[in-house]
Amino acid sequence: MKQYKTPSASEWEALMQRPTATYEDLEPLVASVFDAVKAKGDQAIIDYTAQFDGVLQDEFKVTSLELDQAATKVSEPLKNAIQNAKDNIERFHKAQLTETLRVTTQNGVECWQEKKPIEKVGLYIPGGSAPLFSTILMLAIPAQIAGCKEIVLCSPPNKEGGLPAEVLYTAKLCGIEQIFKVGGIQAIAAMALGTEQIPKVYKIFGPGNQYVTVAKQWATRHHVAIDMPAGPSELLVVADESGKADFIAADLLSQAEHGKDSQVVFVTTHEPLLEQVAQSIAAQLDDLPRKEIAAAALENSKAIYFEKDSEAIDFINSYGPEHYIVCVTNESLYLENVNNAGSVFVGNYTPESAGDYASGTNHTLPTNGYAKQYSGVNLDSFRKAITFQKITKEGIQSLGETIELMAAAEGLEAHKNAVSIRLKAIKDGI
Amino acid sequence: MKQYKTPSASEWEALMQRPTATYEDLEPLVASVFDAVKAKGDQAIIDYTAQFDGVLQDEFKVTSLELDQAATKVSEPLKNAIQNAKDNIERFHKAQLTETLRVTTQNGVECWQEKKPIEKVGLYIPGGSAPLFSTILMLAIPAQIAGCKEIVLCSPPNKEGGLPAEVLYTAKLCGIEQIFKVGGIQAIAAMALGTEQIPKVYKIFGPGNQYVTVAKQWATRHHVAIDMPAGPSELLVVADESGKADFIAADLLSQAEHGKDSQVVFVTTHEPLLEQVAQSIAAQLDDLPRKEIAAAALENSKAIYFEKDSEAIDFINSYGPEHYIVCVTNESLYLENVNNAGSVFVGNYTPESAGDYASGTNHTLPTNGYAKQYSGVNLDSFRKAITFQKITKEGIQSLGETIELMAAAEGLEAHKNAVSIRLKAIKDGI
Repeated sequence: MKQYKTPSASEWEALMQRPTATYEDLEPLVASVFDAVKAKGDQAIIDYTAQFDGVLQDEFKVTSLELDQAATKVSEPLKNAIQNAKDNIERFHKAQLTETLRVTTQNGVECWQEKKPIEKVGLYIPGGSAPLFSTILMLAIPAQIAGCKEIVLCSPPNKEGGLPAEVLYTAKLCGIEQIFKVGGIQAIAAMALGTEQIPKVYKIFGPGNQYVTVAKQWATRHHVAIDMPAGPSELLVVADESGKADFIAADLLSQAEHGKDSQVVFVTTHEPLLEQVAQSIAAQLDDLPRKEIAAAALENSKAIYFEKDSEAIDFINSYGPEHYIVCVTNESLYLENVNNAGSVFVGNYTPESAGDYASGTNHTLPTNGYAKQYSGVNLDSFRKAITFQKITKEGIQSLGETIELMAAAEGLEAHKNAVSIRLKAIKDGI
Repeated sequence: MKQYKTPSASEWEALMQRPTATYEDLEPLVASVFDAVKAKGDQAIIDYTAQFDGVLQDEFKVTSLELDQAATKVSEPLKNAIQNAKDNIERFHKAQLTETLRVTTQNGVECWQEKKPIEKVGLYIPGGSAPLFSTILMLAIPAQIAGCKEIVLCSPPNKEGGLPAEVLYTAKLCGIEQIFKVGGIQAIAAMALGTEQIPKVYKIFGPGNQYVTVAKQWATRHHVAIDMPAGPSELLVVADESGKADFIAADLLSQAEHGKDSQVVFVTTHEPLLEQVAQSIAAQLDDLPRKEIAAAALENSKAIYFEKDSEAIDFINSYGPEHYIVCVTNESLYLENVNNAGSVFVGNYTPESAGDYASGTNHTLPTNGYAKQYSGVNLDSFRKAITFQKITKEGIQSLGETIELMAAAEGLEAHKNAVSIRLKAIKDGI
């Protein structure tokens, strides 16, 4: 990590840069896959899965036999751990359920807001070196609580044409019945457009590599919503003299091991911590299986000393971290004044990995500064708010003139007339 | 309106088509404006405003003198009407404020969700033939209630280089201090990128023509969020024998007058209403100042008779109307079973124009079937949900093993280590 001491505001822009690439050069490939899936349906999925995943299959849906076999391959301790995480995530997301909100805005005018589930949703679970079953918990649990009727899950097959046992076990545990062994751009295209085997959905969720990221963006041209723009994962830790260098180093490393493009930032108002954390990182790094990845990510990363809390807070708000760990004595100062963050971890005993897996909060979060305008995935990500209004005869008699005047001033006479014709009917006793 | 009687499901696809164009051919123009604004800042705004609006100005910000003068030009009855609408919209959107949600997911593990304002938002108010001050109410009121710190409003100048008095009056009434006489693509680019005079924002709201629509989509490539994808306005009315043909015709016309590309759909389970509504439309159309526009929109529009409620409901859900008027005896059947709609108007005395102006609900709504996955603008459109967690020593001792097991199973040893190092420190009494 490169160290910076009391950088001036003019240097912040550079310090806030993420190591993100733009992937516009992938758009032609993504567009061609979408076109092929639109034209050829499942045959295109078969072809791309052979080409990109090296697997030839003409049925993509996971069978109940596969699900049953998977259950036997997951250890009991891991099953218990997954259940523990599931319980916590369920508790936190169920608490987000809301009653219909009813307001009588004026006599005879009742307005209400009701949240209804998005009927069809698609969940993408990346493949790669490790089975990311935790992301299934984070997406499937709120989808089920919201009441989404059709939940489709896509994940790329491994070389043997299967999915990891942990992925299948967790998907079944969460009640997902439509699991497809399809990954990459073709999976996103299939869920956006629909094929013979894979249903079209209204909104696509989940992380992925740069191909999946561009494919999700492209899907929005096909009448599909996405959870949020994706980018490499990131963590900002702020600590004062109450921070523990070993813990901070472990947290920074846990983020750094995600990928070479991950970014970690350490902000402190206690100058000696800069060196202490650097030493602790060096000591812990060597033992990590993914030390090469972590070391590469650390090269993109910054450790910054600020003299004043107010400067640190301003910097954190400007950065807008996805994950934000707060290890300071005056916690409320750093919680109440930081407005831009995805998920916040408070105190020395709250590692980021708690939220990644099991505390109950969601780990699908805005990266790359998007915490300034996007929420992380939550129950409402799987619902939409619909408004209603019901006006009585008395209500339209008292509100009618207001509408007529405003419609006329906007030059919309038919809008006015829709009120006038009702007022006249009431007056005429019809 | 073309009439259809008991169309079979295979015909629905065609009936659900919106008269929307794709505007991808506008992307090169939009990209070039963004590039110019990025490179030249205000000078680009000056140039495009001269070119597109025919106005030469080098200061865009509305002065307090202009605001004061505007206030004298708005009639007292209209001021009262705007105040009435503002009060109702405020009541409904203030009711959407929420407390912090706190959940102890397990002993020693506290999670909470807090909504915080998006700090900087941009509101776009279209120009054109009429002053659309009602949209200012719909965007500025929730932005203020949410607590957005910086609210920027852009609207295209008229030929005299000014903005309509109603627009200025309403903006000031809503406490908007940064009003810029800039419109079209260049306004969106300015708010997305920032110029010397116009601040960069994090999220852009508001309707607009096809240039603005494409510009908003383009802005999402520049780290800016938008309220929702835009399309022509639309209305679906469902009625049984309790529906009143004159009211229905007036509502359909109020939607049709918006633009030639507006779409209105009339669904009924009472066959005679098809003809009665057609006759009433013909009778009312002639008196409308915007009858040419309305007549053109009606050509795109459909009146459909279904024998069964269940078919009508299925069709409505498939269509997913922006505005949905329900004039039936069994209201709950058509409210509880329709899942896809932007805003719903219940009963014979609730015209769409009530929601357009003054009932209290928001009129910025998802069109073109996007009601399946998008909410209309509401208080949360101006906020983001941030999650927090705080774990005690006892909490990490009971949750720790779960995290360790899951992290190890995902091959993320550093994630596991961030827990292990804390558990060890607790055990060692450090």
